[in-house]
Amino acid sequence: MSDKKPLNIGLVGYGFMGRTHSNGYKRVNDFFGDLEYRPVLKAVCGRTQDKAQAFADQWGYESVETDWKKLVARADIDAIDICTPNDQHAEVAIAAAKAGKMVLCEKPLARTAAESEPMVAAVEEAKVPNTVWYNYRRVPAVTLAKQIVDSGKLGKIFHYRANFLQDWTISADLPQGGAGLWRLDAAAAGSGVTGDLLAHCIDTAIWLNGSIKDVSAMTETFIKERVHTATGEKQAVTIDDACLFHCHFANGSLGLFESTRYARGHKALYTFEINGEHASIRWDLHDLNRLEYFDHSDDSIVRGWRTVHITDGDQPYMGHWWVPGLCIGYEHTFVHQVADFLKSLSTGEPCRPTFRDALETARVCDAVLASAAERAWKNV
Amino acid sequence: MSDKKPLNIGLVGYGFMGRTHSNGYKRVNDFFGDLEYRPVLKAVCGRTQDKAQAFADQWGYESVETDWKKLVARADIDAIDICTPNDQHAEVAIAAAKAGKMVLCEKPLARTAAESEPMVAAVEEAKVPNTVWYNYRRVPAVTLAKQIVDSGKLGKIFHYRANFLQDWTISADLPQGGAGLWRLDAAAAGSGVTGDLLAHCIDTAIWLNGSIKDVSAMTETFIKERVHTATGEKQAVTIDDACLFHCHFANGSLGLFESTRYARGHKALYTFEINGEHASIRWDLHDLNRLEYFDHSDDSIVRGWRTVHITDGDQPYMGHWWVPGLCIGYEHTFVHQVADFLKSLSTGEPCRPTFRDALETARVCDAVLASAAERAWKNV
Amino acid sequence: MSDKKPLNIGLVGYGFMGRTHSNGYKRVNDFFGDLEYRPVLKAVCGRTQDKAQAFADQWGYESVETDWKKLVARADIDAIDICTPNDQHAEVAIAAAKAGKMVLCEKPLARTAAESEPMVAAVEEAKVPNTVWYNYRRVPAVTLAKQIVDSGKLGKIFHYRANFLQDWTISADLPQGGAGLWRLDAAAAGSGVTGDLLAHCIDTAIWLNGSIKDVSAMTETFIKERVHTATGEKQAVTIDDACLFHCHFANGSLGLFESTRYARGHKALYTFEINGEHASIRWDLHDLNRLEYFDHSDDSIVRGWRTVHITDGDQPYMGHWWVPGLCIGYEHTFVHQVADFLKSLSTGEPCRPTFRDALETARVCDAVLASAAERAWKNV
Amino acid sequence: MSDKKPLNIGLVGYGFMGRTHSNGYKRVNDFFGDLEYRPVLKAVCGRTQDKAQAFADQWGYESVETDWKKLVARADIDAIDICTPNDQHAEVAIAAAKAGKMVLCEKPLARTAAESEPMVAAVEEAKVPNTVWYNYRRVPAVTLAKQIVDSGKLGKIFHYRANFLQDWTISADLPQGGAGLWRLDAAAAGSGVTGDLLAHCIDTAIWLNGSIKDVSAMTETFIKERVHTATGEKQAVTIDDACLFHCHFANGSLGLFESTRYARGHKALYTFEINGEHASIRWDLHDLNRLEYFDHSDDSIVRGWRTVHITDGDQPYMGHWWVPGLCIGYEHTFVHQVADFLKSLSTGEPCRPTFRDALETARVCDAVLASAAERAWKNV
Repeated sequence: MSDKKPLNIGLVGYGFMGRTHSNGYKRVNDFFGDLEYRPVLKAVCGRTQDKAQAFADQWGYESVETDWKKLVARADIDAIDICTPNDQHAEVAIAAAKAGKMVLCEKPLARTAAESEPMVAAVEEAKVPNTVWYNYRRVPAVTLAKQIVDSGKLGKIFHYRANFLQDWTISADLPQGGAGLWRLDAAAAGSGVTGDLLAHCIDTAIWLNGSIKDVSAMTETFIKERVHTATGEKQAVTIDDACLFHCHFANGSLGLFESTRYARGHKALYTFEINGEHASIRWDLHDLNRLEYFDHSDDSIVRGWRTVHITDGDQPYMGHWWVPGLCIGYEHTFVHQVADFLKSLSTGEPCRPTFRDALETARVCDAVLASAAERAWKNV
Repeated sequence: MSDKKPLNIGLVGYGFMGRTHSNGYKRVNDFFGDLEYRPVLKAVCGRTQDKAQAFADQWGYESVETDWKKLVARADIDAIDICTPNDQHAEVAIAAAKAGKMVLCEKPLARTAAESEPMVAAVEEAKVPNTVWYNYRRVPAVTLAKQIVDSGKLGKIFHYRANFLQDWTISADLPQGGAGLWRLDAAAAGSGVTGDLLAHCIDTAIWLNGSIKDVSAMTETFIKERVHTATGEKQAVTIDDACLFHCHFANGSLGLFESTRYARGHKALYTFEINGEHASIRWDLHDLNRLEYFDHSDDSIVRGWRTVHITDGDQPYMGHWWVPGLCIGYEHTFVHQVADFLKSLSTGEPCRPTFRDALETARVCDAVLASAAERAWKNV
Repeated sequence: MSDKKPLNIGLVGYGFMGRTHSNGYKRVNDFFGDLEYRPVLKAVCGRTQDKAQAFADQWGYESVETDWKKLVARADIDAIDICTPNDQHAEVAIAAAKAGKMVLCEKPLARTAAESEPMVAAVEEAKVPNTVWYNYRRVPAVTLAKQIVDSGKLGKIFHYRANFLQDWTISADLPQGGAGLWRLDAAAAGSGVTGDLLAHCIDTAIWLNGSIKDVSAMTETFIKERVHTATGEKQAVTIDDACLFHCHFANGSLGLFESTRYARGHKALYTFEINGEHASIRWDLHDLNRLEYFDHSDDSIVRGWRTVHITDGDQPYMGHWWVPGLCIGYEHTFVHQVADFLKSLSTGEPCRPTFRDALETARVCDAVLASAAERAWKNV
Repeated sequence: MSDKKPLNIGLVGYGFMGRTHSNGYKRVNDFFGDLEYRPVLKAVCGRTQDKAQAFADQWGYESVETDWKKLVARADIDAIDICTPNDQHAEVAIAAAKAGKMVLCEKPLARTAAESEPMVAAVEEAKVPNTVWYNYRRVPAVTLAKQIVDSGKLGKIFHYRANFLQDWTISADLPQGGAGLWRLDAAAAGSGVTGDLLAHCIDTAIWLNGSIKDVSAMTETFIKERVHTATGEKQAVTIDDACLFHCHFANGSLGLFESTRYARGHKALYTFEINGEHASIRWDLHDLNRLEYFDHSDDSIVRGWRTVHITDGDQPYMGHWWVPGLCIGYEHTFVHQVADFLKSLSTGEPCRPTFRDALETARVCDAVLASAAERAWKNV
C-alpha cells in the first residue's frame, strides 16, 4: 500500500450514502490490488459537529469540518464527494470544481436539468475528474448486460422496460422532511420517485439503449398531506409518489418505465428487460447476482431463459472477489465505482457517468415531469 | 347423461378457437356432474365444405353447414357460437339474436366499439343468453384473485399493471392475412395486439379493478410491409405490432399496460399484478396454476411473496379436477366457461362477461388506439 | 371417426384412476387425428352396482358389470384396463391375458415382484398388448428429457436424483383403509410411498438412466397407529410413510431417491435431476410444462440453467395441442399414453412401459424395502 | 475507534480463507459500531516470505512471519487464526492454546475426529476463547431459520435434507495437490467433499435440528487418477468426489445429505430444507438473501411457499447493513462471525460453533466415511 499514490477524500454528508461511499474507499485496495492510487479518508463534513465526529470515529476519517466551504478550501483535499440532499449538490460541486478539486456527486446530479447545467460547465471548465454515483451500472450483471448489448448479440432492439418499485411510504403516518425523509420533500429532493428511483432506471437505459427522444408520463401523489418534521404541521406533499412513462428511444425501440413507493411487497425492486431481434436480457436488483438471458439461436427444443449466476472470474469485476457461486451484494457497486474512478485517474479516461452523462438523465426526468404536469408528450 | 337437457350448439368457424370451444362442450359433463344441461354438437359451419366436414368428423359434430345464415335459421340449434375472424362477429351475432338463439362470441366482441354496440342491443332486445369468451377470467388462479379482491383483503388499490408479450411475428418473412394470419390484417382483425392481446388484459383489469377512466397510449408497427396471402404482394401492415398505455382507474389507482409480438423470449406471457394497501397479487399465464400473493399482515420477519399452487379442492373450479399438486392447463378455462354458461341457463343469471361487459373493453381499446393516433390523453 | 377401428374398453375400478383413464380414451381422437383406432367405452366394472352405474352415466360407458370375471369373459371387450387397488391387479390381469384381452394396468404392476412375475408371464404367453400406466414418462418435458439423454448431449452421467414429496397424511386423525385411503393399508397397497410414489421415480429413472444395480435404503412410519375404516379400531400402520435410498446405476452414476407424505408444503412434488459431464436436466411436476436445462458448451459468460417452456409444436406431443406458451396439465399424460397404445396396435411395437418393464421397477422396490428392513445394501 | 480495546490477530495462511477472514476483521467496526473490541492485523504467517509480505502489504498486516511457531510465541499476539490446509490445523491450534492464545480455526476442525480431539482438549484446558469458521450459520437467512426453529413454529420435525453441489472438478485434466488444489489430496485435506462441503451441511444441520445418531453412506471417486502437482506424476486420487448419506436425527427426523463436485451446472449450491409438522423452511446459498418459508396455518386458499427477502432491519444482522431490498453477500458471514466473536469476549459466552461443537461434526464425517467404506450403517 505504501507505494500507492494517496487520494485525499473530503466527504460532504454522512448519511446513508456517506456510508456506502466510505465503504467503497476503504475496501477498494483490498480487492483491486493493481490500482495506482489509494483513497485516504481525510475529512468528513457535516453541520452537526457531534454527529460528524461520531461518523469520523466509526469510519476512520482523519478530521471533521462543519462548513463545506472550509473543506473545499483545504489544500490537503484532492476530491470532494457530495452525499448531501439534492438541493445542496450544485453549490458544493461548483465551488469544488472552481477550487480545482475532483468531484464525485451522489445521484441525481441536482434537482433539475437547469440546476445541473452549471455543474457540468464548472467541472468541464475546470477540467477536473468527475463522476456521478449511478452505482447500478456497476452491478456485475448489469455491466455484463452492457457488454452483451455492445457485442451486437441482441440485434435490433424493440423494447426496453424498467421499473423501480418500493412500498415504504404507504403509511399516512410517515412524516416528510428531516433525516432520511428529505426524499419526501420536493424542496430538498427536487422530485419524488422520478429523481430518486426513475433516475437510476433512466441512467441505465441510456447507457444500454441510447438516448430517449420523447416521453409521455403520468404522476400521482397518493397521500396529499403529511406532517413536516421541520414544522410539526400537516403540509401538502409536493413530491410524486408514483411516476409512469412510455417513450421512444433514438434507436426506434419503445420504452416503458414505472416507479412507485406504493407497490406493496416490493422493497427495492429495480428490474429492466431488453428485447432484441435475436436475444433478450432481464435483471432484477433483488437478485442482483443473476442475469437472465434468452438467446433465440439456441436449439429450439431446449431454448429458454437462462438464469446466469454472475459470480465467475470471467464475468465483470468478479475476478476480484471470491469463487464461482459466492454472491456479492449492493455495496460492491460502490467499490467498483471507486476502483474505476481511480483507474480513470491513471488512464485519463472519464469515469462514466460523468456530470455530462448525468445531465442527459436530468433532462429526461424534467421532460417526464413536464409531460405529467401538462398531460402531453414532451421532447427531451 | 340421459336425463340432462340437451343444448344444441351451432359453431361458426373451426379454427383454433373452434377447437378450444368444442373441447369445452365435450368435456364439461365429465367433470361438472351436477349440471342440468348437456351441450350437443349439432352443427359446425364453415365456407369450405371439405374442411368443415373433416372438423365435424374429428370432433363429432352431427352436421355441417357452409352458409351461416342457414345455420342460424335451423330450428334444431339453440345456441350460436362464433369463432370466425373478428370482422364477421357482428353480422352473425345480430342475426342469431334476432333468430332467438343464445350467442357465445369469441373475443374481442367486434373490431370496434361502434361495431359492438348493435350486437349488445340485439342480444338485449332479444333477451337471449350471451357471453364473450374472455377465457382467462376462468383460470382458477385468476378467479381466486377476483375472490381475494372482492374480500377487501387488498385494501385501497394503488397500482394495476399487466402485459401480454409474444415474439412470433419478429420475422419479416411472415406474411399477413389468411388462415391463422388474419390477426396481422386490420381489415379482418380490427387492430393488432390491442384487440388480440390487450383486450384480454383490459377485460381482466376491469373485472378485478373496475372501470378505466382515461388513457394515454402509444403504438408501433415495427415491420411496415408484409406480403399479403390474398394478393401475394407486399402491402402496408395496418395493425399495431405493439401497444403501451397508462391510465387512471375510477378507483384512483394507476394502470400500466403493454402488449407486443416483438418481445423475444416470450411465447404468451400474460401477467398482471395488483398492489393494494395491505396485500398484492401477481399472476402469469406461463405458470397458470400459480398465484403469487403478498400479505403485509404476515409476521414481518417471515413476510414474503407466496407462490400458491392453485390445485386444491377448495380453490376455484379445482374440486372438479384432480388432487392437490396436479396441474390443469389452458383449455380448462373454456370448460369452465361452458360450465358457467350452462349454470347461468339454470339460474337465469348472466354469464359474465356478457356482450355489454365486452363493450366496455371495446371502448377502452378504441380510446387506446385513438390516444396513440393523436398522441393525446383520451377519456374512455 | 366412423372409419376408425373401434377398440372396446372394459374398465375395472372407477376411482381416481378410472377418471384419468376414461378421460384419456375420450379425448384421444379429438387431438390425435391420425390414429387408426378409436377407444369405445364398452363397460365399467365395480362391486357396487349403483356407484358403477353412476360412473357409467357420467362418463358414458355403455354398460356395467359388478363381477370382473364376467367382464373378462365378454366377447365384446378388446382390452381390460385395471384401476383397482394393487392387491387385485394380478388376478384380473392374468385372467384377462388368458382370455386373450389386451391389458392396461395401473401402476405399480402389483404389490411385489413375486406377485408381478406371473402377470408378466401371462401377457407374454398370451402375446397380448400390455402396458402399465407410469404416466409421467409422457409429460412432454419428461419425454423431451429422454430425447436429450438419448442424443448423448449429457455425456457420461454422474448423478441422478429424484424425489416425490407430499404432505397429505401428516394428521394423526386420518384413518387407513377404504375408498381413497387404501393406499395407507399395506394389505391393499403392498407398501406405502415406495410403491405409490417412488415407483414413479424409479420407472422414470430406469427409462432415462438405465438399470439400478444395488440399493441402500431407510424407511419410516411416523404415525404408528391409525383407525382402520374397515374395523373402526386403531390398528398398527403397516405402510412406510417415508422412504429414502441411494444406489448405483449400471452406468456408474449415483442415484439418490426420497419419498414421503410428511413434507409440509409439498402437494405432489415429483422432481428429478440428471447431471452429466456436458449438460444437466431438471424437472418438477408442480411446473410440468417446464424443463430446466444446463449446457456447459454455452458461452461461459452467459451460461446458466435454461427454463424451457415445453409448449411448442416441435416439442414432444405438443403439436397436438395448442400454440406456444399455452400450458397443458396432468391429465394429458394419460391421453398421450392412450395415443401411444393405439399407435402400438398399428405398428406392432410394444407400448412402453410394458409389464416386463414394470417388473424391473417392482424388483427395485422390493430391494429398497428389503434393504430398509435389514439395514443393509441389497442387489436388485 | 480509539477507545476500543485492540485485539491483535496473528493469521496463519493467506489463501482464499486468509482473504475472507482478513476482510472480516477490517470491516467489522465500520458496521458493528457498538463493539468493545477492534481487531488489529498484527501479523500474517506463511512459509514463503515474498508471498506473505505481498499479502501483508495488500491487506495491511503490520508484520510477517514465516514460521508459525514464532508467531505463536509472540507476546503481542492475542489470537491465532488458522487458515492453512487441514493437515496443519491441529499442530498450530494446540500450540496456540498452550501459549494461551485465543484460537479461530477454519473448518473442518481437522482431518478426522481423532485429530480433532486433542485440539478440543487443548483449548478447553487452556480456557481460551475458540471458534470454528462454519460461516454459513451467519448468513442472515440461516440465522433466521435457527430462530424460527427455536420458536417452535415448525412443530415436530419429520425431514431434514441438504446438499452441496459443485462442478469444478469434472475435467480429468485438473491436477491434485498444491495451491488451491490441496483439497483434492486426502493427505492434506483428510477427505474430499465430505470434509470440505458436507461438513458445512452437517454443522448447520446439527445446529438447526440436533444430533445425528447413525448414518448410511456411499462415496465415489469418479476420476481415479490425476497428476499430482508435487510430483508431476499421475497418482491415485485419494479423496471422495461425491458422498451421499441418509441418517436418523436424535429427534426422530430423517436426514438426507448429498455432496459432489460433479453436478454440472452448480457452482456452490448449498441448500437445505426442514419439514415440520406445521411449517417448512428452505434455503439456497446461490440466493443467500432469500429464505423460503411455508406456514400451514395460513388461510388454505392463499397458502404457499413464501420467498422472504432477508434484508430488513428486524432480520438477523441486517440492521447493521443497508436498507430493505439491498442484498449482502458471501463475505458478510465472516464479518458477522468476527462481530460475534468480539461480542463473546465481552460477554464471556462461547462463540459457537466452538471446537467442541466442530468435533461433533467431525465425528459425523468419520461415521459417514466409515459407513461408505464398509457399506454398513454406522453409529456416530
